[in-house]
Amino acid sequence: MPDRVLRAIDHATIDHRSSDFAELARACLDGMKSIFQTPGPVVIFPSSGTGAWEAALVNTLSAGDKVLAFETGHFSTLWTKMARNLGLSVDVMAGDWRHGADAARLEERLKGDSAHEIRAVMVVHNETSTGTTSNIPAVRKAINAARHPALLLVDTISSLACMEYRHEEWGVDVTVGGSQKGLMLPPGLGFNAMSAKAIEAGKKSRLPKSFFQWGEMLEANAKGFFPYTPSTNLLYGLREALRMLEEEGIENVFKRHARLAEATRRAARAWGLEMVPLNCAEYSNSLTALFVPEGFNEATLRALILERFNMSLGAGLGKLDGRAFRIGHLGDFNELMLAGTLAGVEMGLELAGIPHGKGGVDAALQYLVEG
Amino acid sequence: MPDRVLRAIDHATIDHRSSDFAELARACLDGMKSIFQTPGPVVIFPSSGTGAWEAALVNTLSAGDKVLAFETGHFSTLWTKMARNLGLSVDVMAGDWRHGADAARLEERLKGDSAHEIRAVMVVHNETSTGTTSNIPAVRKAINAARHPALLLVDTISSLACMEYRHEEWGVDVTVGGSQKGLMLPPGLGFNAMSAKAIEAGKKSRLPKSFFQWGEMLEANAKGFFPYTPSTNLLYGLREALRMLEEEGIENVFKRHARLAEATRRAARAWGLEMVPLNCAEYSNSLTALFVPEGFNEATLRALILERFNMSLGAGLGKLDGRAFRIGHLGDFNELMLAGTLAGVEMGLELAGIPHGKGGVDAALQYLVEG
Amino acid sequence: MPDRVLRAIDHATIDHRSSDFAELARACLDGMKSIFQTPGPVVIFPSSGTGAWEAALVNTLSAGDKVLAFETGHFSTLWTKMARNLGLSVDVMAGDWRHGADAARLEERLKGDSAHEIRAVMVVHNETSTGTTSNIPAVRKAINAARHPALLLVDTISSLACMEYRHEEWGVDVTVGGSQKGLMLPPGLGFNAMSAKAIEAGKKSRLPKSFFQWGEMLEANAKGFFPYTPSTNLLYGLREALRMLEEEGIENVFKRHARLAEATRRAARAWGLEMVPLNCAEYSNSLTALFVPEGFNEATLRALILERFNMSLGAGLGKLDGRAFRIGHLGDFNELMLAGTLAGVEMGLELAGIPHGKGGVDAALQYLVEG
Amino acid sequence: MPDRVLRAIDHATIDHRSSDFAELARACLDGMKSIFQTPGPVVIFPSSGTGAWEAALVNTLSAGDKVLAFETGHFSTLWTKMARNLGLSVDVMAGDWRHGADAARLEERLKGDSAHEIRAVMVVHNETSTGTTSNIPAVRKAINAARHPALLLVDTISSLACMEYRHEEWGVDVTVGGSQKGLMLPPGLGFNAMSAKAIEAGKKSRLPKSFFQWGEMLEANAKGFFPYTPSTNLLYGLREALRMLEEEGIENVFKRHARLAEATRRAARAWGLEMVPLNCAEYSNSLTALFVPEGFNEATLRALILERFNMSLGAGLGKLDGRAFRIGHLGDFNELMLAGTLAGVEMGLELAGIPHGKGGVDAALQYLVEG
Repeated sequence: MPDRVLRAIDHATIDHRSSDFAELARACLDGMKSIFQTPGPVVIFPSSGTGAWEAALVNTLSAGDKVLAFETGHFSTLWTKMARNLGLSVDVMAGDWRHGADAARLEERLKGDSAHEIRAVMVVHNETSTGTTSNIPAVRKAINAARHPALLLVDTISSLACMEYRHEEWGVDVTVGGSQKGLMLPPGLGFNAMSAKAIEAGKKSRLPKSFFQWGEMLEANAKGFFPYTPSTNLLYGLREALRMLEEEGIENVFKRHARLAEATRRAARAWGLEMVPLNCAEYSNSLTALFVPEGFNEATLRALILERFNMSLGAGLGKLDGRAFRIGHLGDFNELMLAGTLAGVEMGLELAGIPHGKGGVDAALQYLVEG
Repeated sequence: MPDRVLRAIDHATIDHRSSDFAELARACLDGMKSIFQTPGPVVIFPSSGTGAWEAALVNTLSAGDKVLAFETGHFSTLWTKMARNLGLSVDVMAGDWRHGADAARLEERLKGDSAHEIRAVMVVHNETSTGTTSNIPAVRKAINAARHPALLLVDTISSLACMEYRHEEWGVDVTVGGSQKGLMLPPGLGFNAMSAKAIEAGKKSRLPKSFFQWGEMLEANAKGFFPYTPSTNLLYGLREALRMLEEEGIENVFKRHARLAEATRRAARAWGLEMVPLNCAEYSNSLTALFVPEGFNEATLRALILERFNMSLGAGLGKLDGRAFRIGHLGDFNELMLAGTLAGVEMGLELAGIPHGKGGVDAALQYLVEG
Repeated sequence: MPDRVLRAIDHATIDHRSSDFAELARACLDGMKSIFQTPGPVVIFPSSGTGAWEAALVNTLSAGDKVLAFETGHFSTLWTKMARNLGLSVDVMAGDWRHGADAARLEERLKGDSAHEIRAVMVVHNETSTGTTSNIPAVRKAINAARHPALLLVDTISSLACMEYRHEEWGVDVTVGGSQKGLMLPPGLGFNAMSAKAIEAGKKSRLPKSFFQWGEMLEANAKGFFPYTPSTNLLYGLREALRMLEEEGIENVFKRHARLAEATRRAARAWGLEMVPLNCAEYSNSLTALFVPEGFNEATLRALILERFNMSLGAGLGKLDGRAFRIGHLGDFNELMLAGTLAGVEMGLELAGIPHGKGGVDAALQYLVEG
Repeated sequence: MPDRVLRAIDHATIDHRSSDFAELARACLDGMKSIFQTPGPVVIFPSSGTGAWEAALVNTLSAGDKVLAFETGHFSTLWTKMARNLGLSVDVMAGDWRHGADAARLEERLKGDSAHEIRAVMVVHNETSTGTTSNIPAVRKAINAARHPALLLVDTISSLACMEYRHEEWGVDVTVGGSQKGLMLPPGLGFNAMSAKAIEAGKKSRLPKSFFQWGEMLEANAKGFFPYTPSTNLLYGLREALRMLEEEGIENVFKRHARLAEATRRAARAWGLEMVPLNCAEYSNSLTALFVPEGFNEATLRALILERFNMSLGAGLGKLDGRAFRIGHLGDFNELMLAGTLAGVEMGLELAGIPHGKGGVDAALQYLVEG
């Protein structure tokens, strides 16, 4: 987390009914539109990204509605669980946790739903548990090809401001975001970007909602305010993070993540560790998930690296528990920090007695120098 | 907001699946039990207090359930509106915004509900818009006297850690709290303390819920974790705020607020400004709401004081818009800060040409010296 | 100390040989010229104001040189002691600690020095121990009237950026400043502003010097650097403090201090406490020193106020130990902070049983409202 | 600079005549004794290390005194220049900037000084410009062997709290230190540790002194105070830094620096870059200075690395300007930070087209894993 953001956060909380607040709110709301690449509205909830998942569902759907969800990993599974908790009927497109959403299967499935019972399709853009992305334009194309009216709901919690994402152009109806990844903030803000169609659907949606309802939020936001106490200090941080992203240029931010991700994969190849995603077109630029060889436990490796080098790696989640660890390379991250991170992994593999090829760091540096 | 708390917040966010996090979570959860004065569970949502209102309702009630709400001011009205948004049927016990909840009327009303259709009673302990408290033990006694099974739901957003509050002893079923008042934190945490009866009711409640559901939260909390990303940085701040309250001693905190509130009322009397609450047993120790004389607008006074002295007072809310302003004297506040605040009000009254008695600050100081 | 300044300070220290540092140094050096109101050079030592006292002496004088010093209080006495430590011969113009420098006596004294043995005149612009100022233009006029070549050395440690001061126009040869008063910084920077005549004298000065020598400092400063490691973090703070002073406008800063000082004196008069300075033309706008009545000890009063209200007042220093306490009203200080301060003093007087008139705070507020 | 230290610094400045200050001062003074490994007194000046150099000289010597200084690099040369500025007569033991002080030559030289004209020997323990240390126990032994009464003055500005140093046991008379290296603080504090003999010499010393005089400082320090305004905020930071060193254990701190330095040297060897020090017994553990090959300029390499990787390396100083750059590995530094640093150097060498061997980072990691 960048110092500039942390320092922006630790100021006294201003009155959320003052004109200074309105200025802050507008800077955040306008800035987030450009991050989501949408001319339409964006709302900011004082909640974590999980709350923004709930907002996407309760504002567009009604009890018993059927939705289609792609199982791409641990987080898609949690979102599915939430939808069921909320009384929705979820059809899961099962997956192997090593691929993104399969657009061809989706098209077929939607074509079979001639009654248009499916109200929405839920996709995670970047599965944080697997480091695998889904091709959102392809998903949209499949829905269109099936001439199906289902809404497209997309989670970008770990891709937003790391990888290219175009809410409007890609035809997404509700995009879900959070503060704690590419926006370089502490957790505590949840975002929704909405299409006109989603807002229209919202008017007919009958799931009970109050905290997460769009209506009053949009009304108050229009004047620069919130219908209830917002998370003012995190908005200070958001304004600063948006400035940092603008200073670097969002396209440069994407390129930086792409470079660091590719360097990480070069290291992984040198080590001979298998990547979780099987399709190289679906590699994430936010994080890289790597299997440890059979007979080893990723938790042991992570514990050793934490103990010895004070570096915290991502745990294997859900089905990957014990089998794969994750290297994050998102947010305020640069080449030398990556070198340090990869050095920690390489030394950790050695100290843990995990068979691996040498020269991972070297391979990464070679790519960074040439790339 | 105390510097100690702000500085606690602006540290790098730790992994919310680590053992350090579990230690942090336990310190917060245990500390909050002592603040609520309950041996039972407390949950912490990464949301503002409004979210905690929603949690209290969706975890205990089902669509169409009848609830009884006391209209004590602006915030009780907003909570009522939320309950209706969520599909509950709310009977409002109308009020004049100058009194707390009327326990006698409640007893009568509940006795009339022989079918026990009323599932819950909603009361705001300290109405932030009026500076008026409700007598919660009396409310409980009324429910008991009517031998009625309704749950008692109490909002303590602006009283918690300022005035005496005893969740267990007073027989409250769900207490709702927030981070941004007596806990001296930025907004962004919502709390529920629950009775065993509330948890039992929760098992039968059928309002859809996921983000705000108690079940998974309690399960994860038991191990020191959260079912989804928590607001880690605010938890750092909460741990520090709890330490500060413990160092001072919660009884001393209450006494301090009582002294500062009484000094404020002495000033108000010297100025000849009418207090909003009519019953002196219901005066709030968190804030004091004062009417400006007929023919004057409180917004003009507040704008002048903000412009001239850079001091922000509380606006008149809802029915009190334009008519009453509010002086907050809660949280990390001491005698000299109060003297400065009252001096700003006294000079503001003079500069705004509002007729008033002299010597308000003097009267406050006299009380503080003698009291 | 303003938050903006503290936060500016707590950043990582940049390389003091980098171009970023040069930019910082130039902003500080140029800004300080405008604070001293001089087109000539200013130097900044990584030392407290005491170091800047030494710099003023060792750069202009030689062993055994005779200098004339006005005894205006504790700090003028310490500066005299330093001059003697450094091997200078100091003639002290004795004083009663209740008046500033007497220009008429000076003129007479200098006229008597036909051999021009006196090399320099040392005056403290604002005696921090007594709250008494000296009329520097009058002192200059006296030197000129005597047609005496002595250098004029002036300490502005507690007046700079609080009260009007014009190094160039007033004909001062060396002005001494520090960071911790009107510049709102922690202690740790010492300043000298120098006339061309002072620099010329410096070339003949034979007191040994290295750390505090002007020559290498001016040479390095010309390129934006320092001849040795500077106090980089305090320079960050200085740059921010200079921005704040510029935003408010230095003339407005002076007016603010004048208003707050006069309000303090109104309170003092109401209390019936005697001020240390006897001549109202010499009242300081930075601080006010007040006698406690015979039979009382100021230390007891200060201890009580510290204990009870957590407010620290200035101690009686030197001859005033036990007899007078000091109220600071300089730097980042506003009307409501002053009201709180005066309220603390008024309540303290009451609690300490010190006979005093009532209504000091009232008198101050009345002045602030009308003034 | 560690966050803990920066945050300790940015608090409001307390009254330096209060009992809280006395506690702070004692913690700092006692802590520094253990850092210098001396039971004798330590003084702390609100100045940079350069000021502490001056203090060592002016407190022990008189005008015209002869001192002997070892030329070990840029900083020893500056110290010599200071001694001359102060009116001392300096005999320089010329050196090649690639070796530490030569104890054998010293013994011979002192034996030749049968009149005991030489009053002091000046040695830099760790030459920051060359990464070369001097063997202080050997220097002491040489003085003793010559039965010469000269004082031994040692600069530890860049070795203190990084490498073993024993003021008392090694028989040093005055040790000079600064805040900005091993103590992990911003610059702005200068230290002297003194032997009884040095204090005795101080009583006869006749160089003029005031700001830097030991006498009043020791007297005031004895009660926990300072004779003039101290750099309070840096003392906050010092107290925190001392806590950090104590938590890690000073012996562990030394071991950590030794490990990181050796890893750096392994990388240097792999790159084939020549180290500045010629004697491996004199390698510094604080920093490593490396020559670039003939025909290349170290400034170009550093500029490229700064521009491309935002990493600032140490410049070639004095005679090494353009020829050697310096890698710092002192203070709050760990293995992964070193890996990042070495990666930056290795990529920089490649991008600058400087001929070098591959695998420097690899060699460092290999050592760290095995070591």
